[in-house]
Amino acid sequence: MLYFVGMKAESDFVQSGGVTSPQGFLAGATSAGIKYTDRRRLDLGILFSKVPCAAAAVFTTNKVKAAPVLLDRARLKKGTASAVVMNSGCANACTGEPGMADAVEMTELAARHVGVKPEEVLVASTGVIGVTLPMDRIRAAIPEVVLTLAGGHDLARAIMTTDTVPKEVAVKVGDYTIGGMLKGAGMIHPDLATLLVFLTTDAAVNVAFLRQALRKAVDISFNMVSIDGNGSTNDTVLIMANGMAGGKPITKSGNRAEVFQQALNKVCIHLAKESARDGEGATKLIEAKVSGAVSRKDARLAARTIVSSLLVKSAVHGSDPNWGRVLAAAGRSGAALVPEKMELFMGDTCVVKGGSPVTFDKKEVVKHLDGKEVFITLNLHLGRAEATAWGCDLSEEYVKINAEYTT
Amino acid sequence: MLYFVGMKAESDFVQSGGVTSPQGFLAGATSAGIKYTDRRRLDLGILFSKVPCAAAAVFTTNKVKAAPVLLDRARLKKGTASAVVMNSGCANACTGEPGMADAVEMTELAARHVGVKPEEVLVASTGVIGVTLPMDRIRAAIPEVVLTLAGGHDLARAIMTTDTVPKEVAVKVGDYTIGGMLKGAGMIHPDLATLLVFLTTDAAVNVAFLRQALRKAVDISFNMVSIDGNGSTNDTVLIMANGMAGGKPITKSGNRAEVFQQALNKVCIHLAKESARDGEGATKLIEAKVSGAVSRKDARLAARTIVSSLLVKSAVHGSDPNWGRVLAAAGRSGAALVPEKMELFMGDTCVVKGGSPVTFDKKEVVKHLDGKEVFITLNLHLGRAEATAWGCDLSEEYVKINAEYTT
Repeated sequence: MLYFVGMKAESDFVQSGGVTSPQGFLAGATSAGIKYTDRRRLDLGILFSKVPCAAAAVFTTNKVKAAPVLLDRARLKKGTASAVVMNSGCANACTGEPGMADAVEMTELAARHVGVKPEEVLVASTGVIGVTLPMDRIRAAIPEVVLTLAGGHDLARAIMTTDTVPKEVAVKVGDYTIGGMLKGAGMIHPDLATLLVFLTTDAAVNVAFLRQALRKAVDISFNMVSIDGNGSTNDTVLIMANGMAGGKPITKSGNRAEVFQQALNKVCIHLAKESARDGEGATKLIEAKVSGAVSRKDARLAARTIVSSLLVKSAVHGSDPNWGRVLAAAGRSGAALVPEKMELFMGDTCVVKGGSPVTFDKKEVVKHLDGKEVFITLNLHLGRAEATAWGCDLSEEYVKINAEYTT
Repeated sequence: MLYFVGMKAESDFVQSGGVTSPQGFLAGATSAGIKYTDRRRLDLGILFSKVPCAAAAVFTTNKVKAAPVLLDRARLKKGTASAVVMNSGCANACTGEPGMADAVEMTELAARHVGVKPEEVLVASTGVIGVTLPMDRIRAAIPEVVLTLAGGHDLARAIMTTDTVPKEVAVKVGDYTIGGMLKGAGMIHPDLATLLVFLTTDAAVNVAFLRQALRKAVDISFNMVSIDGNGSTNDTVLIMANGMAGGKPITKSGNRAEVFQQALNKVCIHLAKESARDGEGATKLIEAKVSGAVSRKDARLAARTIVSSLLVKSAVHGSDPNWGRVLAAAGRSGAALVPEKMELFMGDTCVVKGGSPVTFDKKEVVKHLDGKEVFITLNLHLGRAEATAWGCDLSEEYVKINAEYTT
C-alpha cells in the first residue's frame, strides 16, 4: 500500500461513511423536479457546516466554464465557505448572463434557508448543458431541504446523473474524520461527464495547506481516472474543513501534514476507483500500473492512455487478451519507450517480455479478464518512475446511455 | 468547393475508379486463410506497376511501429518502388525480429512472383497485433495472385478488416489519373484501427514534390479524420507515380504542381470521408467546420475535438440536438476561444449566438440529425483561420465489433 504507512488500512474506513461523518456537517436533499417530474427522484440539496470552514477547490480547465464554477472560483478566493447548494438535471452551463444570475440566486436562497451570508455559500450543478435552470421550481424547493446527519446519503443521491450508485466514503484518522462523496460516471476520457466531488473534514486545516493537499490528492486520484480535470464545463472538487475536531490547524510542516495528506489521498483514490467502476455501462474496473518510466509524467501519460484506449476497454469488456492494444496505446501516449524493453502482465501472467510475445496460458488470462477487477501492469524498463490509472470497460450500454441523454 | 478551382468537380471522378485506373498499374488478390479459413474471403494481394515508380509515404508516429512500416520506411529512402504486397488478418506488429524476417520474406516472395528486385517491393499488413504471420500459408498463396486491371477491386477487398465496404476512387486530371484505395474503419480517435491508403498515378512526378504533396494532402484529409496519423502501429499512406502518362515530371514550381496538389487533395478527402462514413458501427457522417479561429492550428484542434467527442458522436447517433456538448468539446480542445463570441450551427440552423442559446426549431435540427450527413459549423469569431474535420456517430455496434475482435 502506498498510503497509511504503519496503520491498518481496514480500520480507517467509517462504516456507511460520507460527507456528514465529520463533526458539524449536516446535509439534506429534495425533489425539485428539475429534469424529471418523478418526485421520488432527489435532484436538489445542501451541504452545510455549523461553523465556517476553510475551503479550497480544483475546477475544470475547460475554457467553457459553467456559471457555478465561475461563481465558486471567485468566492473561494477568500478561502472560506459554510455551505454548498447543488443540483442535478441541469448543468447551468453555456447559459450566459442569465445563468450567472441564476447561480447567484441559488446561493442567496440557500443562504437565507441555512442562515448564513450568500458569500459563504457555493453552488454546483450537473446535467444537461445549454439549458437554463427552472428557477421557479428551485425557489419552491430550497426551503423544503431538511438538514440532518443522515441527509448526506440523500445528498449523494441528489447529485447523481447517469451514476448507478451513490459514491460515498469516510476515513477516521485519530481525532478527525475526512468524508467525501462523488458523482460522475461518464469516465470515458476525454469526454468525462461532469465530475463533482465534495470532501468534508472536522480537522482544523490551514487554508494554504488545504489547497496544496487537495491539488496533490486530485493529481493521483481523479486526474488518473479522467484527464487533468479538463473534461466538462462543470468539474469541481471541493474540500471544506471546519476544525470542530479541535486542535491547532494543520500546516505544511510536520508529521500531521503527511498523515492528513495520506488520508486525503486514500479518500480520493477510493472515490476515483468507485467512479471508474461505475463508468457508464461499465462492468469491470481496470487498473493500469506503469513502472520503469523515465519520468513521472511519462508513467502518468502511458497509464492514462492505456485505461482510456477504447480498443483496450472494448477488449477487456469481451475478456479478449488482445495485449497488442495495450502496447499500441503506450506507444502513442507520448511516453518515452523502447519497444524491445517492454514487459507486460495481465493479472499475474506475463504476456510480453523484451517487447516480444511470450507463450502464456490464455485460459488463465481470460479468467482474469472475466473478473470484476482487471490489472494491467506495464514495465518500460527505462527508469524508476511509476503511476497508476483507473478506468472501466466499454460496453454497448455506454452508447445507449449517451445517445438518449437529453431526450 | 476548396479544390478544383475552375473545373467541374463532377466530371473528374472516374466511374468505378481505383488503384488500377492510372495506366500501367495492375493488381490482384487471393485467399491465403491468414485469419479466417473461409476461402471466399480475400486477405492477400499485390499492387504492381509495369515500370518503376517515384514513391513516397507517410507513416504512423506511434513509437511502436510494425515490421512492415520499419521496412518500408527504410526502402523508401531511395524514393522508388514497383510493387506492394499486402495482407489483412494479421498486423505483424509487436512481433520482434521474427516479424521483421517475415516482412522481408513477403517482399522477396512477391518480388520473385512479379519479376522485380525485393528492394523495389514494399509490404503492408493489418489485423491483429502481437501475432506472427502464418508464413507457410503466405508462401503458398503469393504465387496464386493473378495481376489484372480489374484486380484493383479485389485488392481493395483483401485489405478490409472491420470495413463494411471497400473504399476506392479515381480522378482524371487532363492527361493523367490519380487512383486510390483505403482500409480503416476504426475511426474513433485516438484509437484508430490501422489506416492503409494506397495511391497511384500515371503522372510523372518529381519525388521531392511527391513527398511534399502527399504530406499536404494527408494533413487536410486523413489527419482530419484520425489524429495526425499517430494511431496504430501500422498506419501507412503510400503514393506511387509511374509517369506512364508521359510528359516532364511535375515539380514544385508552376501551375501543374497546384493542379496535381488539388487533385490529390480531392482523392484523399474523398477517401477520408468514405472512411469516416464507414466508421465501425457508424450510421452517419459528421462534418465539423470551425471558422473564425486565431490560427489554422486552433481551427484544426477544435474541429477534430468536436468530431472525436464521444458525447457529440453519441448525441448525433440519437439525433439529440445536445449542442452544449459541441461547445464543451471546443472548450477543452486547447483552441483559443471566447465563450461569449461563439456561434454554432447544426445543419442550417443557428443554435447558439454570442455564446448563448437562441430559440430554434428543434424539429428542424432533429430532422437534420436524422440524415446520413450531419454538418456542425462553429464560428469562433476571433480570426480568419478555418478547418474541416470528419467523423461518424457512435453506435452500440462499435462496441460489439471491438469486444470480439481477436476471439
